[in-house]
Amino acid sequence: MKNTFGNAITVTLFGESHGPAIGAVLDGLPGGIKIDEEYIAARLTQRRPSGRISTARREPDRYEILSGVFNGYTTGTPLCIIIRNEDTRSKDYDSVSRLARPSHADLTAMYKYGGFEDYRGGGHFSGRITAALVAAGAVVMKALEDKGIIIGTHIKSCGGISDRDFGTAVWAEADIRSLAEADFPVLDGKTADEMEKKILTAAAEGDSVGGVLETLILGMPEGVGEPWFDTVEGMLAHAVFSVPAVKGIEFGAGFAIAEMRGSQANDCLRTDGKKIYTETNNSGGINGGITNGMPIVFRTAVKPTPSIFKEQRTVDIKSGENAVLSLNGRHDPAIVHRAGAVVNAVTAITLADLLAVRYGADWLRTGEKK
Amino acid sequence: MKNTFGNAITVTLFGESHGPAIGAVLDGLPGGIKIDEEYIAARLTQRRPSGRISTARREPDRYEILSGVFNGYTTGTPLCIIIRNEDTRSKDYDSVSRLARPSHADLTAMYKYGGFEDYRGGGHFSGRITAALVAAGAVVMKALEDKGIIIGTHIKSCGGISDRDFGTAVWAEADIRSLAEADFPVLDGKTADEMEKKILTAAAEGDSVGGVLETLILGMPEGVGEPWFDTVEGMLAHAVFSVPAVKGIEFGAGFAIAEMRGSQANDCLRTDGKKIYTETNNSGGINGGITNGMPIVFRTAVKPTPSIFKEQRTVDIKSGENAVLSLNGRHDPAIVHRAGAVVNAVTAITLADLLAVRYGADWLRTGEKK
Amino acid sequence: MKNTFGNAITVTLFGESHGPAIGAVLDGLPGGIKIDEEYIAARLTQRRPSGRISTARREPDRYEILSGVFNGYTTGTPLCIIIRNEDTRSKDYDSVSRLARPSHADLTAMYKYGGFEDYRGGGHFSGRITAALVAAGAVVMKALEDKGIIIGTHIKSCGGISDRDFGTAVWAEADIRSLAEADFPVLDGKTADEMEKKILTAAAEGDSVGGVLETLILGMPEGVGEPWFDTVEGMLAHAVFSVPAVKGIEFGAGFAIAEMRGSQANDCLRTDGKKIYTETNNSGGINGGITNGMPIVFRTAVKPTPSIFKEQRTVDIKSGENAVLSLNGRHDPAIVHRAGAVVNAVTAITLADLLAVRYGADWLRTGEKK
Amino acid sequence: MKNTFGNAITVTLFGESHGPAIGAVLDGLPGGIKIDEEYIAARLTQRRPSGRISTARREPDRYEILSGVFNGYTTGTPLCIIIRNEDTRSKDYDSVSRLARPSHADLTAMYKYGGFEDYRGGGHFSGRITAALVAAGAVVMKALEDKGIIIGTHIKSCGGISDRDFGTAVWAEADIRSLAEADFPVLDGKTADEMEKKILTAAAEGDSVGGVLETLILGMPEGVGEPWFDTVEGMLAHAVFSVPAVKGIEFGAGFAIAEMRGSQANDCLRTDGKKIYTETNNSGGINGGITNGMPIVFRTAVKPTPSIFKEQRTVDIKSGENAVLSLNGRHDPAIVHRAGAVVNAVTAITLADLLAVRYGADWLRTGEKK
Repeated sequence: MKNTFGNAITVTLFGESHGPAIGAVLDGLPGGIKIDEEYIAARLTQRRPSGRISTARREPDRYEILSGVFNGYTTGTPLCIIIRNEDTRSKDYDSVSRLARPSHADLTAMYKYGGFEDYRGGGHFSGRITAALVAAGAVVMKALEDKGIIIGTHIKSCGGISDRDFGTAVWAEADIRSLAEADFPVLDGKTADEMEKKILTAAAEGDSVGGVLETLILGMPEGVGEPWFDTVEGMLAHAVFSVPAVKGIEFGAGFAIAEMRGSQANDCLRTDGKKIYTETNNSGGINGGITNGMPIVFRTAVKPTPSIFKEQRTVDIKSGENAVLSLNGRHDPAIVHRAGAVVNAVTAITLADLLAVRYGADWLRTGEKK
Repeated sequence: MKNTFGNAITVTLFGESHGPAIGAVLDGLPGGIKIDEEYIAARLTQRRPSGRISTARREPDRYEILSGVFNGYTTGTPLCIIIRNEDTRSKDYDSVSRLARPSHADLTAMYKYGGFEDYRGGGHFSGRITAALVAAGAVVMKALEDKGIIIGTHIKSCGGISDRDFGTAVWAEADIRSLAEADFPVLDGKTADEMEKKILTAAAEGDSVGGVLETLILGMPEGVGEPWFDTVEGMLAHAVFSVPAVKGIEFGAGFAIAEMRGSQANDCLRTDGKKIYTETNNSGGINGGITNGMPIVFRTAVKPTPSIFKEQRTVDIKSGENAVLSLNGRHDPAIVHRAGAVVNAVTAITLADLLAVRYGADWLRTGEKK
Repeated sequence: MKNTFGNAITVTLFGESHGPAIGAVLDGLPGGIKIDEEYIAARLTQRRPSGRISTARREPDRYEILSGVFNGYTTGTPLCIIIRNEDTRSKDYDSVSRLARPSHADLTAMYKYGGFEDYRGGGHFSGRITAALVAAGAVVMKALEDKGIIIGTHIKSCGGISDRDFGTAVWAEADIRSLAEADFPVLDGKTADEMEKKILTAAAEGDSVGGVLETLILGMPEGVGEPWFDTVEGMLAHAVFSVPAVKGIEFGAGFAIAEMRGSQANDCLRTDGKKIYTETNNSGGINGGITNGMPIVFRTAVKPTPSIFKEQRTVDIKSGENAVLSLNGRHDPAIVHRAGAVVNAVTAITLADLLAVRYGADWLRTGEKK
Repeated sequence: MKNTFGNAITVTLFGESHGPAIGAVLDGLPGGIKIDEEYIAARLTQRRPSGRISTARREPDRYEILSGVFNGYTTGTPLCIIIRNEDTRSKDYDSVSRLARPSHADLTAMYKYGGFEDYRGGGHFSGRITAALVAAGAVVMKALEDKGIIIGTHIKSCGGISDRDFGTAVWAEADIRSLAEADFPVLDGKTADEMEKKILTAAAEGDSVGGVLETLILGMPEGVGEPWFDTVEGMLAHAVFSVPAVKGIEFGAGFAIAEMRGSQANDCLRTDGKKIYTETNNSGGINGGITNGMPIVFRTAVKPTPSIFKEQRTVDIKSGENAVLSLNGRHDPAIVHRAGAVVNAVTAITLADLLAVRYGADWLRTGEKK
């Protein structure tokens, strides 16, 4: 399905960095989800370059909902949300050479699209496209919150500095919710400063850093997901690998579980007479591809921003010759903190889809049926 | 799409551990793929319990192709392959209690299917189902090999013992191909013995071990995959998380890339005048979701077999009360070596699908059109 | 999706006329649908050659359920049902020539599959494949009946003889239900004899006849279907055109509505204080692609069996030369009465899918959750 | 997939009659399809109210391409095209009553969306949405034309007046192509005047008329389509039933074939040594769901516009009481001539999808790969 994802609730993504607009279409939502414009704006703000690392705080992206909303609620018909590309003045993109940026999609785009791709600013591959994903995801994320399903992501590590883990602590909804509002979300406040220093040091050297994000989901009903293919892990991974720069994902104990004995790894079951729970959560809330009622936990590896200021060996894809690339302009020395907002967005859409498959389209309705 | 995966080439999986048969339907294959019965049998053998760890070598599963093959070639119509469950004698499954095995799907199956699930031997969640996947995957994997696309998986680590990595070495097709034939595939032969010792030690203690698999794909054409959602990483991850016990996947440098600087992580580009290549392969052969012509590399984390012989706390899902579980019977103390065959199978099907999306259904045809 | 149909509930079809078996996989069903073996057998009997027209009544097809059923109920996992091809003795199919039967798929199969198709008896295009569809459809049709959704099809016309229409009469469930049990379903009993005479006359001349089927669905909930693309009409039409020999479909007043004035065609609305209904049903129970709570009505045009005994001009697709075809063997002079069972089956699966999209997977469950 | 259609090439539709904009996203197109702005505008003009029947010719809809086009060619990434709703001034839609228009979707929309639907002007069900479909379809239709695949639709009957049929004549590309440019496309020019008179007579009486459209496709390659479910008939029917007011579709001889003998209905095969053709085309270019190389022919039944000026019995869906509806404003007394442009659009998208499934994404590329 290419640029569309989901079964019962789908998202379709379009747009290029320097085209007229970027946008997303959400389909399969029920009528009656309240649209919270501030909430959407706040999610977009989290994705924007942060003042701690970038030099200046810019205004949030201005989005426009073209369809699917009436009197402040979703109508149940496709919701198209767009964000205009305001600053797309004609730069000198017609230079004789086109130097492929290492570890960017410049070369693969040419392979795939035969030279017809809009290469300006990365075109359809630009991280800018994620703004549309965050806006669409915010509509769904808010609906999930209203159903008691809370998604939060913190920066588990960045530049060699580690935040503490979600671990097996019992988390309050408010604490998880607040992560989605922070510019630089960490569990242990002081690590933010240390990470920032590492980022700024790398920036000063014309270099960049990556990091690991950790996501926790509270309140997900049990019994959601499929045993084969559309497992919760498979669906989330499918979606999360669309977040640019993500190169790995692990659930629960993840790669560490591979080094455990079964007796350590297994999550023993207990009941308090009302609910069945597990003593540990090495499974990350999922067994056999299906939610078990415990919090879902996963981590994503985000590579360092490939746009750096050091000279790099590359190829001129017009002339086909070896060349050296020196990038100019402003580039973020880290995007891991911004990527969290995108991970949240695709997570929200994926979970909503899995829930709609199980409970039908109307499950997410929050307004009173008229 | 639940138990079906793929866009242009799809696989549908069915069956329960103790039902009449398990099977898979492959759809979207072109007419004219040669069926190599020995090749299929060899892949099934690799998935079977190995003599090095299990006490006795058993015969490979006997499969039957019900449709889609004529005169030794695929017809282009759906290929259904089944494997009968030969030993499904009525055990005493009607005991009063049903103790959910920790970190198995017993509990989540009940949540999802409301008590109607076939719980005998894990039912539809049983690792046995993967035999059908391996058989179907072997049809596709052979077709890919005939097109020069070679998939190989080795055990990168198991029980604390590490094999060497694929790394940046240039691999011969024959070496990669041979991995899919080994009972216990490793790159460095002596590590197999050490791993085996660790497995047997755990087994002696009634425990189990997990491991990490590393997969390399040679010969994948460039320009395959999509920028959003149906990225090569997203599609492979979606499929691979269907392999039971997998809890993580990483591409190229994976989680380690999160700790690198951009200047280390970026794969500089070079050309030898004929082909563009990268000096390193931290991207694992994929940029912007699309293949770049370099080998695809990924690793999967396989948890220790959850069936262990130590006593475990659990819940009786019939009575809803706390209980203690003591498992009997024979259970593998490790499945990581067998999981490799399944990873290869789903990888083959996923790559074939991505290729068919790009080049059309007939691209995989190997026979001469009549 | 090729040989798979549906979104929330899907059916995948496989098999060739002279291969080992034909079959279908139903996925997306909930656990807890009671399997009624007699009901399935009865539907298969209806699809079999009827004694009124064929010389001898044969036994119903023997089907086997390979997966997805446990203790008499669906498990919620994929249900695979197969029917062995018992009489596939090696006929002389290796003759030098292959004469394409006019208005059959012999030629188009070769175009598509490049000569690798199993051409024996029509292969994957054979009407025989519909037996698997009818068996799978029967599982779903019974579940719908238990929910009060009744599907019935009669032969509206055949060989120039017309049965009366469903019209605007209020139909009893039992009357509609009985249509699915009749060998030769008509509303006005005496037309069956007249139609039979026409069929036998054609048969005596080595010729064949077609007919029109009319289908009525009682009890379909309102509000099901989508405004664009996955309209109830579009989904049913998509499915029904898979029934071999169907060349047209119309809903409600159908093609006749094109000749009406709006004031005749419009279905005025009334309420009795409890339910809103329409005075007429020219819309066939569907407005804007969505059910309105009135009976769904549609008609399908079934062409005369293309296998006739008269000489026909054709092409030898091996030699590429013009030729004359004289068919031998036994061929039905009409299949319209048998096609009704297939229309019912695909209708049942399509409606179940639309309902599952709206109400979630568990809506069709009929057994008590344990 | 709700408001999305297609497998390899997909279209997603969004928008409401009185919302900010309507639009469509085309995904799966290759890079390198030339965008012909005049061609798109001409197709939109054909869909607009015609001067012959409406009182005044209005300007064509102004569309904007938001993404997926660069330097005049498709990029291969999703193409989003929108049309602003310019005249959406706040009418008095907040009246106490909401009278459901008979044979409109007012009632079914409420059933489905729970009262949250945007009911103004029919909302998402409005015929206006088809403007986006026509614009998107025009991109694809032009690409098909450049590949020699020509789609044309004429008004076969309207208000009781019949145009001549495509029949078995051999049609010139130019003649078929010109149908897509005509305001009121007929094969026999003088029938247009007679039809127009019938329409104006109905209009004068506050009533409306319907009609039948006949579509011919030249140049479609053979071997395209699937034997089950994704048959060419099934895919086209699925798409065409999205054209508002369509209540029937038939291929080739259609419903008339049901009254033929097999010996009349069968299309005998001949070869001229280079190409195999059929002597007749009762199959409408499709056998076994797959194209046979002959022209594809189908007819669609379009109901009379349900908006009429005569008083109609209806229900007030707010109060739930019986009521009488008297419509005001301007409403077309016929839409059959405008519906042709929409049928062409969905036909083009469906055929392109079937071709991309068969030949891969790049088949439709018309520009020179760079």
